[in-house]
Amino acid sequence: MTVEQYLPFWNQLTPIQQNLLQQAASFRTAKAGEVIHKGAEDCVGLLIVVKGRLRAYTISDEGREMTLYRLLDRDLCLFSASCMFQSIQFDVMVEAEMETQMIHIPASVYRQVMHQSAAAANYTNELLASHFSDVMWLMDQVLFKRMDSRLAAFLLEESELNQSRSLKITHETIARHLGSAREVVTRMLKYFQEEGLVTLSRGTVSIQDEKRLRDVARESLR
Amino acid sequence: MTVEQYLPFWNQLTPIQQNLLQQAASFRTAKAGEVIHKGAEDCVGLLIVVKGRLRAYTISDEGREMTLYRLLDRDLCLFSASCMFQSIQFDVMVEAEMETQMIHIPASVYRQVMHQSAAAANYTNELLASHFSDVMWLMDQVLFKRMDSRLAAFLLEESELNQSRSLKITHETIARHLGSAREVVTRMLKYFQEEGLVTLSRGTVSIQDEKRLRDVARESLR
Repeated sequence: MTVEQYLPFWNQLTPIQQNLLQQAASFRTAKAGEVIHKGAEDCVGLLIVVKGRLRAYTISDEGREMTLYRLLDRDLCLFSASCMFQSIQFDVMVEAEMETQMIHIPASVYRQVMHQSAAAANYTNELLASHFSDVMWLMDQVLFKRMDSRLAAFLLEESELNQSRSLKITHETIARHLGSAREVVTRMLKYFQEEGLVTLSRGTVSIQDEKRLRDVARESLR
Repeated sequence: MTVEQYLPFWNQLTPIQQNLLQQAASFRTAKAGEVIHKGAEDCVGLLIVVKGRLRAYTISDEGREMTLYRLLDRDLCLFSASCMFQSIQFDVMVEAEMETQMIHIPASVYRQVMHQSAAAANYTNELLASHFSDVMWLMDQVLFKRMDSRLAAFLLEESELNQSRSLKITHETIARHLGSAREVVTRMLKYFQEEGLVTLSRGTVSIQDEKRLRDVARESLR
């Protein structure tokens, strides 16, 4: 168990705090498709991805899911320990998208260290701010700009025009067509790729799931 | 200048940190309608509302606004100092909804204290988590459940049925009609009230701005 290499603030902890975390940390493996954390129901604790991939998402009453962000190697999953924050009152689900090896730290232990160590608290702050940013970006694009539907519709049109599912087009050009910025198009295309709608390679966007892309074009990601 | 009464973690600071904050804090008044903070453009610093009301909102390219949350007396405005967090990359605007008296602390000074003091960092964490919760709730209701449109449509229908803009109806009853929970209806009605769409009093919902309510019924808050 080498929890120290995954926590950037490790060297700023006292030996007692380090020992506390090391004693409490345990190794865990989740199978592909396993739901690790179910909203406010449980408070699994802090999870650090050693190898694999986790997906954080929300789910509507009707069962529609929306991916918020993904956690890759070395990422720390905060929402599986959302009970650490009194103020967090929303439900995020976390599932393993492939077999994922994780280090688990009980929420109570992490909270104790966070309340003692400014370094741990500030690191946690930045993580929270970063997830917040991801969600705000998504909300802005989906809610205000309908960039998801517009991009999906554009890709489908191009595909029909060219009679091909493989489009030779730069992100810059797509952005110009949609009156948007290249960075925005690149980020949304990556989101599409992670959702299995398209695959990206240099200079090419390939449509992977035309049916779902049509749904997005019609209804947006909602 | 009595910054200490507005910072719950004051007693956990060292005299040096307390002095630093006290020296840096200044008093400021904003007029009704004044935009205090314009997204990533500026980093005004931390603002503590002494008396008045601030509104945090996002704005689309087309100029459509969406209120994220409000800051009342004693609330601390974090996003006017969003440059404190490396990871915050989204634009929140803040305006004064009435004449508002505030204490201003430069972002660099607050950050310095936050990086030294676990108490300050954890308090900031909770604030961030609380704003995050507000935004997630709004996103969930607007994006997934269309609770905003459904509630607006319901109120307009009831008003027509009863030939009155003043509806004698409990939140519980509305929730039953919409297949939702009372808490959700109460929260969305409060949001409507803050947006000037309705006014609420015991057992009564009064339609205040029928035109805008029709817009919400048709298009949702987007």
